[in-house]
Amino acid sequence: MSVNLEEYFNHYKQKLDENLIHAIEELPAPKSLKDAMKYSLKAGGKRIRPLLLFASIHAYGKDPEMGMATACALEMIHTYSLIHDDLPSMDDDDLRRGRPTNHKVYGEALAILAGDGLLTYGFELIANDENLNDADKVWLIQLLAKNAGPVGMVGGQVADIEAENKELTIKELEYIHHHKTGKLLSFGVLAGAKIAGANANELKLFEEFSQHLGLAFQISDDILDVIGDEKVIGKPVGSDDGKAKSTYPALLTLDGANEQLSYHTEQAKAALNLTNQNTDLLYYLTDLIADRNN
Amino acid sequence: MSVNLEEYFNHYKQKLDENLIHAIEELPAPKSLKDAMKYSLKAGGKRIRPLLLFASIHAYGKDPEMGMATACALEMIHTYSLIHDDLPSMDDDDLRRGRPTNHKVYGEALAILAGDGLLTYGFELIANDENLNDADKVWLIQLLAKNAGPVGMVGGQVADIEAENKELTIKELEYIHHHKTGKLLSFGVLAGAKIAGANANELKLFEEFSQHLGLAFQISDDILDVIGDEKVIGKPVGSDDGKAKSTYPALLTLDGANEQLSYHTEQAKAALNLTNQNTDLLYYLTDLIADRNN
Repeated sequence: MSVNLEEYFNHYKQKLDENLIHAIEELPAPKSLKDAMKYSLKAGGKRIRPLLLFASIHAYGKDPEMGMATACALEMIHTYSLIHDDLPSMDDDDLRRGRPTNHKVYGEALAILAGDGLLTYGFELIANDENLNDADKVWLIQLLAKNAGPVGMVGGQVADIEAENKELTIKELEYIHHHKTGKLLSFGVLAGAKIAGANANELKLFEEFSQHLGLAFQISDDILDVIGDEKVIGKPVGSDDGKAKSTYPALLTLDGANEQLSYHTEQAKAALNLTNQNTDLLYYLTDLIADRNN
Repeated sequence: MSVNLEEYFNHYKQKLDENLIHAIEELPAPKSLKDAMKYSLKAGGKRIRPLLLFASIHAYGKDPEMGMATACALEMIHTYSLIHDDLPSMDDDDLRRGRPTNHKVYGEALAILAGDGLLTYGFELIANDENLNDADKVWLIQLLAKNAGPVGMVGGQVADIEAENKELTIKELEYIHHHKTGKLLSFGVLAGAKIAGANANELKLFEEFSQHLGLAFQISDDILDVIGDEKVIGKPVGSDDGKAKSTYPALLTLDGANEQLSYHTEQAKAALNLTNQNTDLLYYLTDLIADRNN
């Protein structure tokens, strides 16, 4: 079964990649800007946010392609956040997924503008989507802006920067990850459910699922950073540690972090079970997130 | 009459300022981020984009406050663009309107994130506006994202950066200004008309008006940069010239630039006349833009 699921996801990943690049190429915009935007979109990655979106639509027995424009928007906004996070004044990273970061290739000015462009264009893609009705578009844009903006991802990034060289409590660490990483993952899950026609009660359960999933994702990331292999994850192992950032293993020990990872993975699945939908794909992605090597 | 109009605009400018600050203060986001966002929103400025939006609604005899959320969104997105433009890797400006630029006060990382936050939150404000129907929200978000994004303002900024130290033709210079400055001015005019219920034909005339207005705005800015007084405009006179950027006076002589300014001002008014609406306020703003001292 998991071989079929892998094929299934690869199919949608490829469709997503094609749509992402096509969406940039059709823009009557300066070539250098489009190149910089495409460079980071092409950097690959797990595409976990769009895949969650597709899997949520699938849970309702609907065609995942209904969410293609929203999935592209989500991946663009995730990509913009990586470009800006990598900047010299932020995390100052030279490598991302084993390739030079955007500003290393295109310079800081163009990297900032490529990020701005991806963020802005993301909202346009949803507003322009001919497969969605206006009410759903407005709902999706509201949630995406909220989860990506000052009370969501941007707020989490600020909290993360301010946490550098400070000893954090688990609660403070959870705040950062819930906002910096969890909010966009959550949007993927909820957007798919909404597009597929989920009711308010189901959306609540999907939100609970996504919150535990988001924490599992980050704990798993922190664990990987301790035990991972530099070649596999594509960035120097322990690079977060070098800046004295708090991590789950640092606060809880490696065993404690693994315990928390199991706890949130189970809680995520428990919420899924209550939706009474076909959550096979979401289960699969949850396991993939909890037990990954990159 | 012009005294009354000045009072009229001051009234809406004050309402706008209150709404802008309130919109930030109510956010459950990190204090430093909100401070950085408010700092640049409070920097004042002419608020020309929101005033155009209000004036377009007024042209239809409707209440300008119908467009308050959209006006706030527009001013936030304009403000984000100034914060990012001022960054060391972009224009590297220390002063804006006589005050230290955002990154000089809050550092580069927070300045970038404050810009990202304002851009994202702008779209949320429109999506959340209870005074607009869903169809209008989608229309406004489509146009705002298009005019602010890669084929609009961001594209213009890229072209502007690439034009540094190059001799441009008038056409190339117009491309930059049409995109970098004109597109957001145009959104203000068109958003107001749309909110007030303009039909497709009227929207076309308002678009034509706004395109000439945008060029008049930039030519006037370039002229001011040559003849202006440092204390009045709040930035070093000739600062653009220092980086060998092409300007209208440089390409056309000062007389030639003034001629172009008159031409675009007249063309703007001619388009307005064809709308058959009450365009008093838009006339007033056009004159203000063509004959300003800051």
